[in-house]
Amino acid sequence: MTEIATEGFSSTHLPYGVVTVDGRRRPAVRIGDHALDLAGAEAAGLVDAGGTLQAGTLNPFLAAGPAVWRAVRERLLALATDPPAKLLHRLDAVTPVLPFEVADYVDFYSSEHHAANLGRILRPGQPPLLPNWKHLPVGYHGRAGTVVVSGTPIVRPSGQRRTGDGPPEFGPSQRLDVEAEVGFVVGVPSRLGAPVPVDRFADHVFGVVLVNDWSARDLQAWEGQPLGPFLAKSFATSIGAWITPLAALDAAWVPAPPQDPPVLPYLRQEPRHGLDLALTVRWNGTVVSRPPFASMYWTPAQQLAHLTVNGASLRTGDLYASGTVSGPEPDQVGSFVELTRGGTEPVTLADGEQRRFLADGDTVTIEATAPGVDGGRITLAEVTGTIQPPSGAEVTAR
Amino acid sequence: MTEIATEGFSSTHLPYGVVTVDGRRRPAVRIGDHALDLAGAEAAGLVDAGGTLQAGTLNPFLAAGPAVWRAVRERLLALATDPPAKLLHRLDAVTPVLPFEVADYVDFYSSEHHAANLGRILRPGQPPLLPNWKHLPVGYHGRAGTVVVSGTPIVRPSGQRRTGDGPPEFGPSQRLDVEAEVGFVVGVPSRLGAPVPVDRFADHVFGVVLVNDWSARDLQAWEGQPLGPFLAKSFATSIGAWITPLAALDAAWVPAPPQDPPVLPYLRQEPRHGLDLALTVRWNGTVVSRPPFASMYWTPAQQLAHLTVNGASLRTGDLYASGTVSGPEPDQVGSFVELTRGGTEPVTLADGEQRRFLADGDTVTIEATAPGVDGGRITLAEVTGTIQPPSGAEVTAR
Repeated sequence: MTEIATEGFSSTHLPYGVVTVDGRRRPAVRIGDHALDLAGAEAAGLVDAGGTLQAGTLNPFLAAGPAVWRAVRERLLALATDPPAKLLHRLDAVTPVLPFEVADYVDFYSSEHHAANLGRILRPGQPPLLPNWKHLPVGYHGRAGTVVVSGTPIVRPSGQRRTGDGPPEFGPSQRLDVEAEVGFVVGVPSRLGAPVPVDRFADHVFGVVLVNDWSARDLQAWEGQPLGPFLAKSFATSIGAWITPLAALDAAWVPAPPQDPPVLPYLRQEPRHGLDLALTVRWNGTVVSRPPFASMYWTPAQQLAHLTVNGASLRTGDLYASGTVSGPEPDQVGSFVELTRGGTEPVTLADGEQRRFLADGDTVTIEATAPGVDGGRITLAEVTGTIQPPSGAEVTAR
Repeated sequence: MTEIATEGFSSTHLPYGVVTVDGRRRPAVRIGDHALDLAGAEAAGLVDAGGTLQAGTLNPFLAAGPAVWRAVRERLLALATDPPAKLLHRLDAVTPVLPFEVADYVDFYSSEHHAANLGRILRPGQPPLLPNWKHLPVGYHGRAGTVVVSGTPIVRPSGQRRTGDGPPEFGPSQRLDVEAEVGFVVGVPSRLGAPVPVDRFADHVFGVVLVNDWSARDLQAWEGQPLGPFLAKSFATSIGAWITPLAALDAAWVPAPPQDPPVLPYLRQEPRHGLDLALTVRWNGTVVSRPPFASMYWTPAQQLAHLTVNGASLRTGDLYASGTVSGPEPDQVGSFVELTRGGTEPVTLADGEQRRFLADGDTVTIEATAPGVDGGRITLAEVTGTIQPPSGAEVTAR
């Protein structure tokens, strides 16, 4: 029997990804520090997903829907206790790639603490939340084509920024930031013109990935009116390489914070629950924040109901992210603009270096744990990225 | 020889689409009121696109790049004077479908007259243009999955709106509007981290479609801060069924309006030219506006350079639209919120009906003509849509 180190990725977690083996992309499930080749497992008759595991991406399997997801997981739970050695690959011997083709990418803004923190930084002296914030989960579309898998280097973006009232300057972003988020992967599509009610979340959503929505705050401040973020976000969004299926999070649902004022009927959810994911953000190895996902004001089911209430259809591979996860405490914030109070208070990392925003060469890693179905805790696959200098190699501020 | 009515779609125009013939999707080129089956033409050895015309969508052909586009057009220009009858289908006997799979959809805001008109309506008493507007082509990402082909019915979206200072209400949009735009279809992808300079436009962009970016103004006003439009736009965006290749618009380039203040180096284009497309907007048959695309402040090449300057990559099938096309005159505006001055001055249609915004059953059709390469004028394929009532069948304001 192959010896498998399973911490956080025990045989009851079983997240899905795609790995490159001998130059071919193969759907796989992660068991500890190994990947089990699902294309091979299906070809050998060990699992039956109707042939959807033979592609180089998870999209066909995601489209197959809850009955197939359940049946495959049942089989894998049995297989995982003694997986066939010839289908197992050590993770350090394979390359994880983007696990699915992203159709549309939507980013919400659903942490009350994050929205209020940014409001205080951007609109001092005014109410921290805008009037619409507690009535609907504010969101916008991002760039699906630049969603990249964890580990992909992040080239510092250049763009326009303005300091003071003069004309804008062009150059590499000097206020490059992270946003620690949780993303939801849509499997089953919906019809144009047919909203998805708040209680049909599990009919469409397959699972969860960690997200780092890299953000250039100087570009964002200049470009963002009146139509929202564009180049400040579109250069890259990183996601974890392994999708944790909802089924592995059955024990992680907890009541969401109360909502006042009451929401409109299409957003009412009973029971209204969120996921108890405990995030950590590491900056060059130093844990600088521990954002609690359970503190989010809007739940993933409310976000999905809102996203479709105008009749917008879902496609397999749609990804929607929670928005920056920030808790009520200063060491629970999911972005560095919050951590450093708008860049005014540097943080000191374990190596003694001080930072306000990201320097070239910096690495940020977001991890999370959650209650698992067997009483232990599972680990959501990390999302990590290292900043590379812009092609011009100009000096950037720290 | 088959008799072909060619007005606007002469044998030197030759736009590309996809039609369903006997239940199969076939790439085709439009010649007058007929579609020439390109899959069949390639299979018969009449054109050679390296096999890219055998798919059910134009994406493989779009990805093939300028050399293949040129070679195929050369052959089609010769074939079109006497096309083989067995590959010709009358347009009324086939169903045009979405001609390509949309990767990412970006919408710009590049008409100075439109931006200033909206500024006067939304921010009365303040400067009509925001400070960034003349320094960069403002844009945002829209929903690619709800881009639909001309003729697709448009279900009136429901959502949140607020009148006055009270809580928001939920219901069908009462201020449903159009945006007459011109869209650019990307064929050749670009690498992540590598901007596309302003002079490389023609290396990547294949052609042009008309766009109607349907907009629910009441939803937009309530949801839009601080992250921009979301559900107000994401329910549907219509595009023409036939893509006019850039090669058919060689004679349509004209100098763009002067830019003051000067733009940053990455946006400098010499000569800086736009397309002389003459749009018309028909509301239930009545021409209510004639927006001149030549009046756009930002050119399509500047838009592409801006879109990628942060290192964002392009994919085959990316679509970016110009933003609402409005000229300087009141009868040249590309949206009804402008035409009716924020809904305060109704327009009277030819049948005597009065309108401020769209009523259920209304049809809007956007057309355009342009100078063709043979000295005549060509017609860009129309984009049309009819408003269907929401499922709840509630009464909507006119």
